[in-house]
Amino acid sequence: MKHRIITISREFGSGGRTIGRLTAEKLGIPCYDHELIDRIAEQSGFGKEYIKERGEYTSHASWIASAFSERDFYGHSNQDYLWNVQRKVILELAEKESCVIVGRCADYILRDTADCLKVFIYADMAKRAERIISQYGESSEAPEKRLRDKDKRRAAYYQFYTDMKWGEARHYHISLDSGTLGIEKCVHVISELY
Amino acid sequence: MKHRIITISREFGSGGRTIGRLTAEKLGIPCYDHELIDRIAEQSGFGKEYIKERGEYTSHASWIASAFSERDFYGHSNQDYLWNVQRKVILELAEKESCVIVGRCADYILRDTADCLKVFIYADMAKRAERIISQYGESSEAPEKRLRDKDKRRAAYYQFYTDMKWGEARHYHISLDSGTLGIEKCVHVISELY
Repeated sequence: MKHRIITISREFGSGGRTIGRLTAEKLGIPCYDHELIDRIAEQSGFGKEYIKERGEYTSHASWIASAFSERDFYGHSNQDYLWNVQRKVILELAEKESCVIVGRCADYILRDTADCLKVFIYADMAKRAERIISQYGESSEAPEKRLRDKDKRRAAYYQFYTDMKWGEARHYHISLDSGTLGIEKCVHVISELY
Repeated sequence: MKHRIITISREFGSGGRTIGRLTAEKLGIPCYDHELIDRIAEQSGFGKEYIKERGEYTSHASWIASAFSERDFYGHSNQDYLWNVQRKVILELAEKESCVIVGRCADYILRDTADCLKVFIYADMAKRAERIISQYGESSEAPEKRLRDKDKRRAAYYQFYTDMKWGEARHYHISLDSGTLGIEKCVHVISELY
């Protein structure tokens, strides 16, 4: 049987990771999120915190700046190396079994090779701010500022490696506003479509 | 009881109108599409063909060009007048009953006043080309060219009157790729979420 993959792209604080985990539970298939980071750490030698941060975010909020930053004499950066390892790990997983993969441009990486249901999860600023405070606690920075910075750097990462604009509906099969619809309804819809 | 409205924004050729009609049938509520045009014609005095064309499309593919085109001494255009009548008709409908409204920036017009489920329907170029040929027949222009022109002028209209970018997932509660998922599944998901 051919495997079916669900890729979940999500805005920071939208609950996309939780939606991925619950959908996988409901469907009885594995969900790769933290487990993905473990595998990438194993194969790349990078630390997990570095992978978490630099496997989805650029260091600059502009993809043009990031295109020129931190490169060696040959134009390679650690982030490029990490991208290649991530790509390899994601392709291997999709080859092996049906699963849910959260983040890391899996939608783009698997575009030609796997039978994917590509999902995008987002929510408005207020709902996400509420969620990150309840999940990660307060910090010295206002939650809106943290979110805006994360959004910009994730969009820049996505644009740099995929040459597509982050958050455009047409890159996905379904996009869901988790803030309005709620986590449970999102899980229900995705499971039904699978 | 407060009314619930479903607004369907759709790419030309994506089957969004059919999805709206079938969803309304399933839910036992009216669907306003052609009926909307009849009402706008009655209240505005414009012809139906003019309303179909200029109630969702600019005459130019750029919203900047459209901002300066066809204006009288006071800066008003027929399209502005049409926008105001459309707006009034849509607000009246939403006030009166639960219904499905297809197109005409209803998502934006009702943003503050009604309990809406905002849906965006799209599909890839190949699927839409196939659909417009089966629906409207061949024309001297290649279907991809017709679609690209419609897309551009609809996006320009949307940007000009709403100041938002057409096709960004975050403007809607749910976005669905009807080309991959199929009309029936889209109807099912929207009805379930209602």
